[in-house]
Amino acid sequence: MKIIVDAFGGDNAPLEILKGAAMAVTAYGCEVILTGDEQVIRQVAQENAISLNGMEIVHASDVMTMEDHPKSILREHKDCSMAVALRLLAEGKGDAVVSAGSTGALLMGGTFIVKRIKGVSRPALAPIMPSDDAPFMLIDCGANADCRPEMLVQFAHMGSIYMSHMFPREGGPRVGLLNVGTEDTKGGELQLATFPLLKESGLNFIGNVEARDVPAGVADVVVADGFSGNVLLKTMEGTVDMLMKNLKGAFMSSLRNKIGAMLVMPGLRSLKKKLSTSEYGGAVLLGVNAPVIKAHGNSKAEGFCSAIRVASEFAASGAVAQIEEFMGKKKSEDAAQ
Amino acid sequence: MKIIVDAFGGDNAPLEILKGAAMAVTAYGCEVILTGDEQVIRQVAQENAISLNGMEIVHASDVMTMEDHPKSILREHKDCSMAVALRLLAEGKGDAVVSAGSTGALLMGGTFIVKRIKGVSRPALAPIMPSDDAPFMLIDCGANADCRPEMLVQFAHMGSIYMSHMFPREGGPRVGLLNVGTEDTKGGELQLATFPLLKESGLNFIGNVEARDVPAGVADVVVADGFSGNVLLKTMEGTVDMLMKNLKGAFMSSLRNKIGAMLVMPGLRSLKKKLSTSEYGGAVLLGVNAPVIKAHGNSKAEGFCSAIRVASEFAASGAVAQIEEFMGKKKSEDAAQ
Repeated sequence: MKIIVDAFGGDNAPLEILKGAAMAVTAYGCEVILTGDEQVIRQVAQENAISLNGMEIVHASDVMTMEDHPKSILREHKDCSMAVALRLLAEGKGDAVVSAGSTGALLMGGTFIVKRIKGVSRPALAPIMPSDDAPFMLIDCGANADCRPEMLVQFAHMGSIYMSHMFPREGGPRVGLLNVGTEDTKGGELQLATFPLLKESGLNFIGNVEARDVPAGVADVVVADGFSGNVLLKTMEGTVDMLMKNLKGAFMSSLRNKIGAMLVMPGLRSLKKKLSTSEYGGAVLLGVNAPVIKAHGNSKAEGFCSAIRVASEFAASGAVAQIEEFMGKKKSEDAAQ
Repeated sequence: MKIIVDAFGGDNAPLEILKGAAMAVTAYGCEVILTGDEQVIRQVAQENAISLNGMEIVHASDVMTMEDHPKSILREHKDCSMAVALRLLAEGKGDAVVSAGSTGALLMGGTFIVKRIKGVSRPALAPIMPSDDAPFMLIDCGANADCRPEMLVQFAHMGSIYMSHMFPREGGPRVGLLNVGTEDTKGGELQLATFPLLKESGLNFIGNVEARDVPAGVADVVVADGFSGNVLLKTMEGTVDMLMKNLKGAFMSSLRNKIGAMLVMPGLRSLKKKLSTSEYGGAVLLGVNAPVIKAHGNSKAEGFCSAIRVASEFAASGAVAQIEEFMGKKKSEDAAQ
């Protein structure tokens, strides 16, 4: 398996990316192609005694920043490290791409360089998130703010195919439609129109799910328009951050609390690990012709190592081919009707 | 101040409601009208030694359940405890209503019994929520799944008027538009159309706010369509619940953790109090002709007592009159243009 890694994406590039890639090569025996400024990569690797064994470098001098418009990946920045990575993927030089760079640019580049799977209306960005139970996929989380019912049904199929490979569950992944209540008649126009389509989709559709039950792990694939999916994702992140910060504050507020905090630290650490998103490598871009993984912008070495593992598993799973097959079948069914 | 309390709404009716009302009468010196089955109320009060001093009972034998359709408050259940409470308010027999019953029914009854303020497109349900900083208002949180830009602007004005009375801040409440990013050009059609309207609204509009920053207290009034507002509200609740449950589990996982947990308990308790929503009495229904408060369905006595306090303060603030005045002024301005 050969994973193409954008060495200049995210807050901690390139050092943490090189570390993570070296960890992944050792741990999973995969090959890595790094894209980015070759001289800088070699220098940082040398200064930090990171072995580049099993890694190839494809030079790209340009870098996209968060200030650059996503579209510029197709024009002004068409030779940046992310664009080069996606082009290598499109040309079949590697099996998957991992980047922690701008989400908008990755979405744009994924859609127009790696290209949409035939029949897919719009690719979706789908993070794998921790829950009290098993990890779940949220699809879409921001690629498409305004959605049509057919798009949500496609998200459900793509997410279900991915999850059935990566986190198999008897009976198939439980697909839930994010809604304001669990009753069949809840929601706005979009949800009311999507519900019957999902019911007839042949998926393991468990009906509407409320945001309140999502962190508990009520569904394996939570289907949403990109706007409310984004609100769910970021509210979870913001609430965990706020609570953890306050917990720290509470623990430091007196000597008694400080001593207690020292004692509960191991329990807290394992909780933090359970709720950490870095385990699952970030988000996957579904609906394009090859696996593209969006790692968290603030990922450290462990996060990149996980993302490379997820990318390998995703590439090995054949999920992309299965989505292609489904879209082809769907198209001929629609034509036959 | 005379607060009308639906004695048969919510999971803990009528016992916790009677307790909470008695607490409020003692603590704030307000008068209370209880609506519901008089015989049951007197019996429960007697069995639990709850004084009904300062309270009047208006008999209503019928009760709405969560299974009843919201519209039935206007027809089949027009004599239920909630409908009777709202009718008393509409007739000026009290200054505000508190109910922990069905949200849909309260919204329906509020809109058609208490009636919309002239010029208001749609009343909104707006919870007051805890943040790391000061409490904030989320408007709308589910009354209107599909919204038009003009509705969001009205929500912003109504929320701003309410918050400037209840939680004054120099320069006026900071109004933020819930969005997927902070840049001016973010969002779907609704947000893109609403942004310029809010910019020209004369409100203290701070721009787009991300869900990630909302729990930290980035804005005093968070404006959203009812669907994504509902997702934000319930994700916060679900995430706090999930974390607290896991924290408990982590603390009980070993003797060392148990001892530590005993020591940090006071710190945890004050954190729990800080993040508790019951302090702020629940949600307010804005855009109707008199103050209506939706208490949490699972409220206990303390929650009802807070809700009655909030109802008194809301009624005393003159916020409803100010919203009426604003809508009247707005209408004549629009006509003059």
